Amino acid sequence: MHDTNQSAKPWAGRFNAPTDAFVEAFTASVDFDRRLYRYDIQGSIAHATMLARQGILTEAERDAIVDGLEQVRARIEAGEFEWSIPLEDVHMNVESALTQAIGDAGKKLHTGRSRNDQVATDVRLWLREEIDTLAGEIRRLQQALLDLAEREADAVLPGFTHLQVAQPITFGHHMMAWFEMLDRDHDRLLDCRRRLNVMPLGAAALAGTTYPIDRAYTAELLDFDRPAENSLDAVSDRDFAIEFSADAAILMMHLSRFSEELILWSSAQFGFVELSDSFCTGSSIMPQKKNPDVPELVRGKSGRIFGHLIGLLTLMKAQPLAYNKDNQEDKEPLFDIVDNLKGSLKVYADMMGHVTCNHQRMREAARQGFSTATDLADYLVRKGIPFRDAHEIVGKAVALGVREGRDLAELPLESLRQFSEAITDDVYAVLTLDGSVAARDHLGGTAPNQVRAAIARARQRLTD
Amino acid sequence: MHDTNQSAKPWAGRFNAPTDAFVEAFTASVDFDRRLYRYDIQGSIAHATMLARQGILTEAERDAIVDGLEQVRARIEAGEFEWSIPLEDVHMNVESALTQAIGDAGKKLHTGRSRNDQVATDVRLWLREEIDTLAGEIRRLQQALLDLAEREADAVLPGFTHLQVAQPITFGHHMMAWFEMLDRDHDRLLDCRRRLNVMPLGAAALAGTTYPIDRAYTAELLDFDRPAENSLDAVSDRDFAIEFSADAAILMMHLSRFSEELILWSSAQFGFVELSDSFCTGSSIMPQKKNPDVPELVRGKSGRIFGHLIGLLTLMKAQPLAYNKDNQEDKEPLFDIVDNLKGSLKVYADMMGHVTCNHQRMREAARQGFSTATDLADYLVRKGIPFRDAHEIVGKAVALGVREGRDLAELPLESLRQFSEAITDDVYAVLTLDGSVAARDHLGGTAPNQVRAAIARARQRLTD
Amino acid sequence: MHDTNQSAKPWAGRFNAPTDAFVEAFTASVDFDRRLYRYDIQGSIAHATMLARQGILTEAERDAIVDGLEQVRARIEAGEFEWSIPLEDVHMNVESALTQAIGDAGKKLHTGRSRNDQVATDVRLWLREEIDTLAGEIRRLQQALLDLAEREADAVLPGFTHLQVAQPITFGHHMMAWFEMLDRDHDRLLDCRRRLNVMPLGAAALAGTTYPIDRAYTAELLDFDRPAENSLDAVSDRDFAIEFSADAAILMMHLSRFSEELILWSSAQFGFVELSDSFCTGSSIMPQKKNPDVPELVRGKSGRIFGHLIGLLTLMKAQPLAYNKDNQEDKEPLFDIVDNLKGSLKVYADMMGHVTCNHQRMREAARQGFSTATDLADYLVRKGIPFRDAHEIVGKAVALGVREGRDLAELPLESLRQFSEAITDDVYAVLTLDGSVAARDHLGGTAPNQVRAAIARARQRLTD
Amino acid sequence: MHDTNQSAKPWAGRFNAPTDAFVEAFTASVDFDRRLYRYDIQGSIAHATMLARQGILTEAERDAIVDGLEQVRARIEAGEFEWSIPLEDVHMNVESALTQAIGDAGKKLHTGRSRNDQVATDVRLWLREEIDTLAGEIRRLQQALLDLAEREADAVLPGFTHLQVAQPITFGHHMMAWFEMLDRDHDRLLDCRRRLNVMPLGAAALAGTTYPIDRAYTAELLDFDRPAENSLDAVSDRDFAIEFSADAAILMMHLSRFSEELILWSSAQFGFVELSDSFCTGSSIMPQKKNPDVPELVRGKSGRIFGHLIGLLTLMKAQPLAYNKDNQEDKEPLFDIVDNLKGSLKVYADMMGHVTCNHQRMREAARQGFSTATDLADYLVRKGIPFRDAHEIVGKAVALGVREGRDLAELPLESLRQFSEAITDDVYAVLTLDGSVAARDHLGGTAPNQVRAAIARARQRLTD
Repeated sequence: MHDTNQSAKPWAGRFNAPTDAFVEAFTASVDFDRRLYRYDIQGSIAHATMLARQGILTEAERDAIVDGLEQVRARIEAGEFEWSIPLEDVHMNVESALTQAIGDAGKKLHTGRSRNDQVATDVRLWLREEIDTLAGEIRRLQQALLDLAEREADAVLPGFTHLQVAQPITFGHHMMAWFEMLDRDHDRLLDCRRRLNVMPLGAAALAGTTYPIDRAYTAELLDFDRPAENSLDAVSDRDFAIEFSADAAILMMHLSRFSEELILWSSAQFGFVELSDSFCTGSSIMPQKKNPDVPELVRGKSGRIFGHLIGLLTLMKAQPLAYNKDNQEDKEPLFDIVDNLKGSLKVYADMMGHVTCNHQRMREAARQGFSTATDLADYLVRKGIPFRDAHEIVGKAVALGVREGRDLAELPLESLRQFSEAITDDVYAVLTLDGSVAARDHLGGTAPNQVRAAIARARQRLTD
Repeated sequence: MHDTNQSAKPWAGRFNAPTDAFVEAFTASVDFDRRLYRYDIQGSIAHATMLARQGILTEAERDAIVDGLEQVRARIEAGEFEWSIPLEDVHMNVESALTQAIGDAGKKLHTGRSRNDQVATDVRLWLREEIDTLAGEIRRLQQALLDLAEREADAVLPGFTHLQVAQPITFGHHMMAWFEMLDRDHDRLLDCRRRLNVMPLGAAALAGTTYPIDRAYTAELLDFDRPAENSLDAVSDRDFAIEFSADAAILMMHLSRFSEELILWSSAQFGFVELSDSFCTGSSIMPQKKNPDVPELVRGKSGRIFGHLIGLLTLMKAQPLAYNKDNQEDKEPLFDIVDNLKGSLKVYADMMGHVTCNHQRMREAARQGFSTATDLADYLVRKGIPFRDAHEIVGKAVALGVREGRDLAELPLESLRQFSEAITDDVYAVLTLDGSVAARDHLGGTAPNQVRAAIARARQRLTD
Repeated sequence: MHDTNQSAKPWAGRFNAPTDAFVEAFTASVDFDRRLYRYDIQGSIAHATMLARQGILTEAERDAIVDGLEQVRARIEAGEFEWSIPLEDVHMNVESALTQAIGDAGKKLHTGRSRNDQVATDVRLWLREEIDTLAGEIRRLQQALLDLAEREADAVLPGFTHLQVAQPITFGHHMMAWFEMLDRDHDRLLDCRRRLNVMPLGAAALAGTTYPIDRAYTAELLDFDRPAENSLDAVSDRDFAIEFSADAAILMMHLSRFSEELILWSSAQFGFVELSDSFCTGSSIMPQKKNPDVPELVRGKSGRIFGHLIGLLTLMKAQPLAYNKDNQEDKEPLFDIVDNLKGSLKVYADMMGHVTCNHQRMREAARQGFSTATDLADYLVRKGIPFRDAHEIVGKAVALGVREGRDLAELPLESLRQFSEAITDDVYAVLTLDGSVAARDHLGGTAPNQVRAAIARARQRLTD
Repeated sequence: MHDTNQSAKPWAGRFNAPTDAFVEAFTASVDFDRRLYRYDIQGSIAHATMLARQGILTEAERDAIVDGLEQVRARIEAGEFEWSIPLEDVHMNVESALTQAIGDAGKKLHTGRSRNDQVATDVRLWLREEIDTLAGEIRRLQQALLDLAEREADAVLPGFTHLQVAQPITFGHHMMAWFEMLDRDHDRLLDCRRRLNVMPLGAAALAGTTYPIDRAYTAELLDFDRPAENSLDAVSDRDFAIEFSADAAILMMHLSRFSEELILWSSAQFGFVELSDSFCTGSSIMPQKKNPDVPELVRGKSGRIFGHLIGLLTLMKAQPLAYNKDNQEDKEPLFDIVDNLKGSLKVYADMMGHVTCNHQRMREAARQGFSTATDLADYLVRKGIPFRDAHEIVGKAVALGVREGRDLAELPLESLRQFSEAITDDVYAVLTLDGSVAARDHLGGTAPNQVRAAIARARQRLTD
């Protein structure tokens, strides 16, 4: 009954009129923040343990509280918990159930803390765990890329700039570019984790508390690196949420670029790769379609992640210290980011093991489009022609090839020599695809042996 | 069973491997797009009606379809419908249920259309209706503002620039500023409605259909202004979603600014207004708190709306025509915008009737801060001193006031005259608050009679 | 000398310490807002004219002011004007030069106005004119598209969904999709122009003025539809800037999508179109490259426009009324949007007349990829098979084609008939490309005669 | 002359038609990227040095190049360099001037590199240096905060939540909250610096080069930690730019929040602090105004930084590898971020030394608003009452105080005792402001001795 619930409000004392019913629902957060129940209970157990050690609770009270909280958790996990909107949020729902279960000791749990430091702690505990999961999924995707890169270390395809054929590269080399981006993504998440792993508890509403608490002990119990240095900052800070969102946005930008390539490469016009049927869907009207739904959807999901990032920045934009109700809006975007990121990484990690290369189409595409033109320029430089002049000579040879519909390797020697006498018949060796890729033989280059060395170094990095 | 579901896929014919189970869930949209069922069925009924009129369906088939769809709708509304993830989306769920109910005729409903034009139609039908609701809520809030403005047309408070006291204004005048902003918001939504009220149906997958359809007739049945002119555009266009989101973002920006003022004005330091207890909440730790949760939360909600806008722009950024799976991501942000906008407008419309002004605090604040300094400058100009010189004279008088801790009206005549001999004892009349506001007596000015005239014009506008 | 400048400050009277030199430069806007000088002078002339008509200035003063302002304008346009940072902004620079030129009358110009309403007026006058220019450029691009669409009304290429070949369409039809999007963009800009064409002047700092001004007359002189209804709103409102930015963002989203297609189509893999050499550039290292720089750059420019939109929303997010210094940040993004939009539209309008279609490549691409599969399904429906069953039959035929490497039209009759006895040898007629496009013969469909009719209607619309 | 310039294009060989004049200007970047000249020359000198060591250039060629580049740099710095639009960018402008100065050796400089890896290197060198400058400015602002916090470690003001008075805190404690935020900002910038300090050179266009280059040596010369592992990634990666922008956005969010407080605190209603006249400006119409322009402008500048972040994310969103012309758009936002960040930090660091606290106003504000209500609750808990019951008792006492217009310390004992018999006359000791702040005496709490300890730890951190 509503009246009962109303009187249960933890702050009703000062108020003369009951909360408007729509306002109650509009301002309640329990519909989404109940997802945090496990971390809320974890934090409460640590808090009670510290209070008891400091003599603020008795040992019996602490035991009752810990026991009661574990019962609440069990009921939630069994689906037997009834969440109440009038109780506003996960914190009051849990505490209220605790007090119903164990009586007055439950009312003592909130000693020396506030919902402001409590929710900040819950979110950090939750996000810390999710980052660990996400980091694991990135690693799984990186492993899939390493395997694919190794398998296709020699497979030649055109490298593009401006989506124009530029120079031949190997598929393995291309996959390793994605590996590198993901490695930075992983690194950024760990930096974020390090920065967020600081405990707000003890900040209470904003100023700290008058009880003789031991924040270092609570931090230790919760595996935080240290308590936050400043109580106002501890309850106001949402940097970790924004930093995480920015890391997520960059990661999704990478997956979106990767998706763009898989979509292009799956098109009939490119035909470089085929995705497994299991990762594609069809059309309700065009029976022939096999659509790369997964990369398309992931590409699309970058939008919502960018949006959440800007949403969180806007949220915090000009808030005076310390806690304001606006901050309640920080959770839904974070939840949505984590869910979509996990899904996108998982589906990519699963999918990349099932990508098939069409070697013939890739090689053909590289053969066309004058992809060895740079090799010809380098050849001329080795014969003593300054690079800029060599570049111009090759440009003219390409123009001839365009007019005649022939690649450089297909132009007869006399045609080539009309642009430079330095060209002799050894030129055709440098104009082959395999010669071209093998020649880029330095750290970071596309030569197959360099790719294999890069894979080996990468495997070592993941092991370390 | 999964196999059964799989075989139910509308596009399974061409595929050799079943969809990966996680991919199926990851790419399905039924969890959120089922919200569109009513519009999906409405569109299907119109489509079937047109097909029958064109002889593509028999009248019996049409009757069976219409009847079957209405049964499906009834089942959904009774909570008896079981939504299926393997059936991907609201469209296939509804159609599959229809076919189960009425047999082969159900399989004919999709003749001459595709999910691409179908979903575009559903979203437009839905959004058109939501815009009408939102426009109604804006009007309700505007009415509340008019009533409040009328009640407080004479109440003097300081107007601020740079959050420094600038000149006295009336509370009614201030409320009418918000009225004007909301009026533009209303206007923008109607422009958006006009532009979106164009029917995609008949575009089919992207190119139109080979059936002799009559799009004008379907458009008429669905109350669209006209069919879309180009089939590729019809299935690709999400302008209406972005335009709507931009309109929503501007509206939320207004409510966020309004909220900022209500929060400031509710603070102990300003104390200009009091919000009803019914629209505030308390603190779990600080028993004295009465927090303006509603404006705070609305201010915070601007973030998510800005975010969705940028999310949708990102989504569409460089998509080639026509439909891509990315577009599935357009719905969740739209739903979230509509829900939050409706809630924010409703709660504001409800709340503004319960705002109490503290006339004494407002008037006191205006009396301090030299708010009639401009009036003194204008007085000097009327005595023949160029504006820029008058401004400098008043600046010096204010500096004296600051030093002596007295407002201009409290400085003796001889003190004032040391800055200009043009000042005589009639000066004190222009330095009163009521004189100051009454003197701004032109269209758009803060004089109470101008405010009342503005309210009257505004009431007339709403009536028209 | 600094002191001299300092003493020139219009507000120095009240201050004891001079402005910090870095602060002076940091807060000054004259470096960018001087771009508005022409509109500032236009507004001042109208203001002075009104003041004289109302007897607030003498006719001689008005004449001196008008004359002096025109001299200032001439000096600016001749490059002989020295802008001063200590004078902060375009307004004070112009007014100070005016007073130096004509003496005391210049000091009277600011009577009854403030920089707050002045700058709001300047920006509206400027943006109104720029919108007219932009609208003209959109029309020019639309004309280029109409001409191209007409020339290529019969040219068949594959239509894509999911970047997979879907159904044959015509190039003219595709161009008309872009025409439609631009038409909405044009429409949105005109709505924005209508809403912004309201005059802030007379709002003064925020509350109106004590002088007997005639705002309707000033509005008429400046070709505004009406004076703003509320003075607080008039100086605070930046809706028009955000609405314009949103319109710009949608337009750039369209150009970005268009660019994506031109880039794809210019690739060796698609080879559908060739851009003129005049609109491409080459590579400093790869002599063969011909890069579609213009579409790439325009695609990239969508980023900065989206960014400015979110920047302006953030700027206004929670500002209390009325004017705050934050608002100074509104101009640079607007200038940048206008410049980039004009450049992008101009270069597109110029470029689209020089696009060459490679009909053979387009037709070949459409011939592959089972693009007429839907036609086969429709054929079966006409033979009495329910659409969903027909779809499944065609799916199996396509699967056979994939296995055998043959398009549907290349499968022998007996192969096709194994999936349905309803197929007879009249099937091959519906499997041709020209037959397929011609069959989509309804308003909005891709049939060449429908495209020509759409072009004719569009030309009529532009004429009206 | 244009023809001369045209022939100077480094890629003209393949082209038949000259670049359209508008396109040339539209696509050129030299207007903004010339800012990078110093880093471009630095990179080129290192590249030439490596080429000579590897025998690809002679020592004489290297010397000529180094010498020539230093001449070019001197000419640029003397303002004698004429930048050419037809030469497109800083790279070609510098190289062209070099070749004019030293002849054929200049044409050899581009051996083994491309503009793609060159520009990526330039931007990293530039940003690395700017990050060092920014980090220094953050430290300078932190020092100013430490000094201010130390000076005001005992000064009591109300802490706010929901902008309602919550509990008394000290001004020093509040300043230390800002110190902590800036510390994370500093930390994030250093993480970004570490990640970006990887050298792209040697990636050439995208695949590496056929010359026997030594990338480790070039990296060492340029003080990079290592060469990039993958050539495709090296030319495509703009993570560092986005990460930097995100760090900047969070930093500006902090300064925007800080600004909001300074603006509030400078208002007549709060009156907690006064900013020095040197950091404020006045009004052109209201002679009494002293506006906190600096914090307002900084608050506003958060918008443009958030915008640039989203602009860069959008830019990269779905770009296929490797380099695309879109990327040219990465530089202007980065430049604008750096300039605005440096200015905002500098002006804040300068301003914070000139902030004056109005101790009386702060203390008065804390005395009102029942700020010691939590202390009363804690007092009751210490007397054995469960926290939740204590909270309710205090709520009722506050309600009485509100009705009677008296703070808790002003209520007589009998009034207090009607809510709980546990209250005795020792209660008044806990209701004083100084008692309240002193009682929050644990790490992170607001007790003056804790604030001083935090300052000491912070000074130590900055020293380390």
